[in-house]
Amino acid sequence: MAETVSIQEFSKLDLRVGRVLDVRDHPNASKLYLIDVDLGPELGQRQTVAGLKPYMPPEALKDQLVIVVVNLEPATLRGEQSEGMLLAAQEGDNIVCLTVASPVAPGSKVL
Amino acid sequence: MAETVSIQEFSKLDLRVGRVLDVRDHPNASKLYLIDVDLGPELGQRQTVAGLKPYMPPEALKDQLVIVVVNLEPATLRGEQSEGMLLAAQEGDNIVCLTVASPVAPGSKVL
Repeated sequence: MAETVSIQEFSKLDLRVGRVLDVRDHPNASKLYLIDVDLGPELGQRQTVAGLKPYMPPEALKDQLVIVVVNLEPATLRGEQSEGMLLAAQEGDNIVCLTVASPVAPGSKVL
Repeated sequence: MAETVSIQEFSKLDLRVGRVLDVRDHPNASKLYLIDVDLGPELGQRQTVAGLKPYMPPEALKDQLVIVVVNLEPATLRGEQSEGMLLAAQEGDNIVCLTVASPVAPGSKVL
């Protein structure tokens, strides 16, 4: 198991509920999607880059509520800007996105 | 918005899928539940303390797949040990648990 993390370290993370607006193939990477996410009135719309293409079709993501880490350092992946990380769980070859048990508005904070 | 967090800092967190086994009232706190969670073969069963009682009945949690931070420093809340933190999203007075978009085994890692 990973080492212990303090509640202060955990609290530095800003996790939000987002709604997937659009899913496109990354032009230069066979396993990556470009995913536009609505993060609510405060944060607006952002593009994220996610390695989900081998695991689900775009239709499985479109309009879904997802969980996004919104305060990671922005990264450029194969020339495309990623402004957030979608969280997903892995069981062997099966990868599924995190979501909420019932709908809440995009931008809602995770605590 | 919170300050920026590096991917290395984020990677220190160990988030897992868990299945809720049992939900009890905390004996000394009106807003807290004691929630037993199955975290799979590696981590086994753990008790967590969560302030979810004002927001949902025990039946809404029982048998559900939830997301748990499993490597926070253990805490004692009003005399009860909490060995993990259930993640939930808040929209005003509405609090809903995080879960997975489709079922995976307890103990599956979030990445």
